[in-house]
Amino acid sequence: MQNVTLSFTEISQSLGPLIDAALDARTQLGDGCPARLREAMRYSLLAPGKRIRPLLVLLAARACGGEIESAMPAACAVEMIHAYSLIHDDLPAMDDDDLRRGQPTCHKAFDEATAILAGDALLPLAFETLAREIEPPATAVACCVALAQAAGACNMAGGQADDVEAGKRNDECGIMNDELTNIQHSSFNIHHSLLESIHHRKTGAMIRVSLRLGAMVAGADEVELAALDEYGRRLGLVFQITDDLLDVQSTEVEMGKRTGKDARRGKLTFPGILGLDRSTQYARQLVVEACRAVAGFGPQADGLRALAQYVLERNR
Amino acid sequence: MQNVTLSFTEISQSLGPLIDAALDARTQLGDGCPARLREAMRYSLLAPGKRIRPLLVLLAARACGGEIESAMPAACAVEMIHAYSLIHDDLPAMDDDDLRRGQPTCHKAFDEATAILAGDALLPLAFETLAREIEPPATAVACCVALAQAAGACNMAGGQADDVEAGKRNDECGIMNDELTNIQHSSFNIHHSLLESIHHRKTGAMIRVSLRLGAMVAGADEVELAALDEYGRRLGLVFQITDDLLDVQSTEVEMGKRTGKDARRGKLTFPGILGLDRSTQYARQLVVEACRAVAGFGPQADGLRALAQYVLERNR
Repeated sequence: MQNVTLSFTEISQSLGPLIDAALDARTQLGDGCPARLREAMRYSLLAPGKRIRPLLVLLAARACGGEIESAMPAACAVEMIHAYSLIHDDLPAMDDDDLRRGQPTCHKAFDEATAILAGDALLPLAFETLAREIEPPATAVACCVALAQAAGACNMAGGQADDVEAGKRNDECGIMNDELTNIQHSSFNIHHSLLESIHHRKTGAMIRVSLRLGAMVAGADEVELAALDEYGRRLGLVFQITDDLLDVQSTEVEMGKRTGKDARRGKLTFPGILGLDRSTQYARQLVVEACRAVAGFGPQADGLRALAQYVLERNR
Repeated sequence: MQNVTLSFTEISQSLGPLIDAALDARTQLGDGCPARLREAMRYSLLAPGKRIRPLLVLLAARACGGEIESAMPAACAVEMIHAYSLIHDDLPAMDDDDLRRGQPTCHKAFDEATAILAGDALLPLAFETLAREIEPPATAVACCVALAQAAGACNMAGGQADDVEAGKRNDECGIMNDELTNIQHSSFNIHHSLLESIHHRKTGAMIRVSLRLGAMVAGADEVELAALDEYGRRLGLVFQITDDLLDVQSTEVEMGKRTGKDARRGKLTFPGILGLDRSTQYARQLVVEACRAVAGFGPQADGLRALAQYVLERNR
């Protein structure tokens, strides 16, 4: 990590506008799309965000010697899936959130039916983008399979189902997160492994598939795919740990979404199970391992190293 | 129509069990999928249904000289999209229905969060099924694009958004459907065309894409695709008209879902705008035209003719 020459800010400033323009172009949506539905889709998709997942697609493509431009459809597809999942996760029946990326959530800005349908419409648009734009067809097909698996019942949707369920169970018992640490010390390992299992599926799978799509579009070989997956597994956990830490330590204004909610809901979190200090140490160690996993790519993976460092140090 | 030799019952009895077995096999879903989520997906997907859309895939493939077996993945994919759309349409924030296919709707049998996620997980599974199983890759890609468009913002999701919106507007004005006929006689054509536009997108697009997928898998040419699309446009309307008629004329027990709800909600319907008799006549005429459109396929299209006749005469 000493040799990180590229900063995340530079990467974000150079690639961010390209990603936003590409998302904008793919959501103009012509005849037949009701104006309000299009507006809701664009409201959530184009809301200011860190664009971590599309950046991972593009940086993975670059690490494997591919072009940013050919990877852009895949970058858009993962961001569409991510935006849909945020819209649905925020619904009253799920996490019931009012604020996201510093603005009212989709169902608050529009209405619940429109929010459900905006998510439902972003999902097929992601697959349409891959199928229509990725070349050759065999690569497009492989990308569709990988993205569908990451978003599906065994990964993102399943992780969210388990997460909602775990929160509900703790709610019913009236257990708060800081109590959880004491009460369940004996079952520490069980909770740690359940927590990692939820996050590997809920957050990790989309992070890993982002890297995979970028690499596939760039024609990566199995060794490169495996190295990026090692990086992605660790980055996904770092992402979740820092998310949990920010939920405890940040204010609503800094984060642009409600904070302190994990504890209120009795959700399993890393600081809740490991404590603040050990969570921070664990995240640092994972970043070192993530950077080591992509050492073989040389300077072409500088962007991935800078991004991992950013995820560790981010304050929102 | 005089030369219909195959009955819908025969078709349904021979192909129905094959479709159900194929759907069952594709929703076993291994590691990572929470049991409750899998149960909810299967509850809705495998509920007794007419399987009109997968039958259209298989019958279109047969009309174009293709094999039932190679078209089966596409048949499963359209039924997965259909099942997801029913789950989400039934949600409290949408049509708020308690009964579907004679059993409690998914969010009643499970809970709202699980129902949203079951729909969200069926959607990518449909694309995974196409991408993984359809050969060659170029055909798989074309199938993904076609299905994504049919399910997306400009078609199914958009039609549903307009439908919910139209219902809400009429609710607010306190207008009931039978009043609508009198009040809006002068704007009859506007309403008729809005109604057809909603249904072409909400129901019609999925019916047409079912035929298209079956035909593409069978290697159909442009002339065959166009003929099936003509058939599909008409069948989609017949389907909606008879659905509207059944909502007025049937009992809840016969239909396995709540009836009379369109009028209560002030939804635009064919009997509401054309009256009962003219709606029935219109449906008959459309079936004649649909059968004429597939005349060129000869006896290979007998199944499609039988299905159109069934849709006209069905009582649930």
